[in-house]
Amino acid sequence: MRVECIFIGEELLRGSVINTNAAYIGKRLMACGFTVSAHACIPDSDEAIERAIGEALGRADLVLTTGGLGPTLDDVTRKSLAKLFDTELVLKEELLADLKKRYGNRDLSLENQATIPRTAHALPNSIGTAFGLVLEKKRGQGGCTLIALPGVPVEMKALFEEQVVPFLKKRYSKQLPLATDSLHLFGVSESTIDPILRKLEPLHPGVRFGIYPSDGLLTITLTASSKERLFPIKAALQNAFARNWFESQAGLLEEAILRWMVSHQKTLALAESCTGGRVAAKLTSIPGASDYFLGSFVTYSEQLKTNCLGVLPATLAQKGAVSEETTLEMLGGLFNHTAADYGLAVTGLAGPGPSDSTLPVGTCFIAAGERGHRPCVEKYSFPFGREKTQLLATNFALGLLYQILQK
Amino acid sequence: MRVECIFIGEELLRGSVINTNAAYIGKRLMACGFTVSAHACIPDSDEAIERAIGEALGRADLVLTTGGLGPTLDDVTRKSLAKLFDTELVLKEELLADLKKRYGNRDLSLENQATIPRTAHALPNSIGTAFGLVLEKKRGQGGCTLIALPGVPVEMKALFEEQVVPFLKKRYSKQLPLATDSLHLFGVSESTIDPILRKLEPLHPGVRFGIYPSDGLLTITLTASSKERLFPIKAALQNAFARNWFESQAGLLEEAILRWMVSHQKTLALAESCTGGRVAAKLTSIPGASDYFLGSFVTYSEQLKTNCLGVLPATLAQKGAVSEETTLEMLGGLFNHTAADYGLAVTGLAGPGPSDSTLPVGTCFIAAGERGHRPCVEKYSFPFGREKTQLLATNFALGLLYQILQK
Repeated sequence: MRVECIFIGEELLRGSVINTNAAYIGKRLMACGFTVSAHACIPDSDEAIERAIGEALGRADLVLTTGGLGPTLDDVTRKSLAKLFDTELVLKEELLADLKKRYGNRDLSLENQATIPRTAHALPNSIGTAFGLVLEKKRGQGGCTLIALPGVPVEMKALFEEQVVPFLKKRYSKQLPLATDSLHLFGVSESTIDPILRKLEPLHPGVRFGIYPSDGLLTITLTASSKERLFPIKAALQNAFARNWFESQAGLLEEAILRWMVSHQKTLALAESCTGGRVAAKLTSIPGASDYFLGSFVTYSEQLKTNCLGVLPATLAQKGAVSEETTLEMLGGLFNHTAADYGLAVTGLAGPGPSDSTLPVGTCFIAAGERGHRPCVEKYSFPFGREKTQLLATNFALGLLYQILQK
Repeated sequence: MRVECIFIGEELLRGSVINTNAAYIGKRLMACGFTVSAHACIPDSDEAIERAIGEALGRADLVLTTGGLGPTLDDVTRKSLAKLFDTELVLKEELLADLKKRYGNRDLSLENQATIPRTAHALPNSIGTAFGLVLEKKRGQGGCTLIALPGVPVEMKALFEEQVVPFLKKRYSKQLPLATDSLHLFGVSESTIDPILRKLEPLHPGVRFGIYPSDGLLTITLTASSKERLFPIKAALQNAFARNWFESQAGLLEEAILRWMVSHQKTLALAESCTGGRVAAKLTSIPGASDYFLGSFVTYSEQLKTNCLGVLPATLAQKGAVSEETTLEMLGGLFNHTAADYGLAVTGLAGPGPSDSTLPVGTCFIAAGERGHRPCVEKYSFPFGREKTQLLATNFALGLLYQILQK
């Protein structure tokens, strides 16, 4: 079954708005058992809409559009749909009556909103004036169903959940739902995992593999006709990367850390230098972080390293701010100045410029440990530019901490 | 001139990743004088890539793609491009030598990365192993230029800024006698600026206006046939928003703050609660931040607010952690515990859950000031969900600080 989406709106092409509808619809359709085969963004012009939707109707079984259903002059989707489905626009009195009941008589644009293609089935919109539209196109033996939704994300979501999901479940009840699963890893490079997947792929025909790297993290996705076919593959990968996978619906290491910390009733504090608060920002992005996360000493300057964490001036002078010794003293200071059960400290040379250090730009030290236990300290090299160095140091720091928690 | 973009990657269709590349490229192309006519997202399959790119090559003058340039088995763009441009893949020794110089001999996938279509021009990638590719297709009188970039946003951006922008400016210098300028604002909403632009627009025919809001910041772009036509418009807007515009090539408030701090030889320290290190992360994203930025006390817990900043337990108990009083005590503690010339403190209720506070979720307090001077403290309401609250608090904090620096 081929599903295509068409997102209508100049603002998406100009980049003034990020197309979050695409990800929302893609994810929700997946969960309903559909895979989007392709999507397109086009401007609000009759010509572009008629060409894009016309082509999609010729090859897809289901077409979903968003945008262009508002009452203003640049909202032309309804007119184009009437033309594409060989019908005309008519004012539907029952829809107008419904809108007037909700919005009163004052707003003249309600008549525009109740004017839809004659053969369209209207989907009620609980939070706005634009109806969703369902249209059917015969084509040889089968045909194509088109669902048009408004582009404003909050209205699109309401219509999608309240109207589209029940419609799809009823309309396509006989289609086999697709099974998907994913495995999240840290500290594993794409080039390490690739040869392993290349060996697995011929052993499992009909299973599709996807690799999604993201700044030191990596997600492997598996798709097949049934869940049972995915189990052995996921188990084999979990076995091969026993120290590197983590459990998180959203693929977030900070979510896995929060779950571990809260279930073990432990607390955490950080000492950050080159990551400049990024580790704390990640951890505090998850609701409930305050249940275990005490805070972070972002000691970007030597002054704060010494004054707030008690790093010895002699260590900074002799070993340098970016050194195993300084990182360990930051971690020690953290335990002295807080009641945290676990600590994590990061220093590094983010660059791009030269520094007093003799170490190459991109060098980072990460130390992590439990209060009263010998800490673990690692040296890394991330010579990929300032932004990437900071991102990688952040994710590897979370990875090292998670590894220690698993011990 | 017709420009199309094609974004390659299952993850975009399945919604596991939001396509931020589309907005970035759309915005940057606009600033260079190009308008994207349409874009498409397709999966990482030979068939889909060959069809989508093949069709685009038949109608567009410039095609930009992202994705599928990695070394792994689902990265098939290079192979498809070779087929579409009637050439074959060859290992380019000079590219391999360059990669080995940067990454050593250990990683075998470097050979894959140096294997590109014979007729392609390679664009060097300063932070990753995937080269950008430029290919030219003859078509009747004219032809079409294709630029393929990696999909990882940080690599795409580096290649776009360092390679693609100079390439486009040179390649299309005759088609684009366009002047562009932009004005960056903080603390101004889209609905405030919109009526002003609507009045200016008819007075300046031939000038294109763009508005790009971004979490409390806003960029207005102006495009016309000559720089002279833009001067009076920019001056009028700067006059109308005298307290809200800032000077930064990249539209980054943190860059404007760094420039002011360094030129005035002043230092800054932060005390963050609800922003969880995001203000520090923004400031340290700019190279040279260590010249003025001392660090941040990310005192997420009451324990650290008291132990590290000296906030009185009585204040926390009576006024709450999110209050004007606590925010001012955090700022005071900052001056006591560091030698910073300027300080900035933020507290707030990021949500989503209920809290002990009687204040509504989204309430934030921001205090900023110079050592020895009366600080400025403001109360804000950002009830838009945890992520948005944290982002807005971060940008409004930088805005308040910048306003104080300008006094």
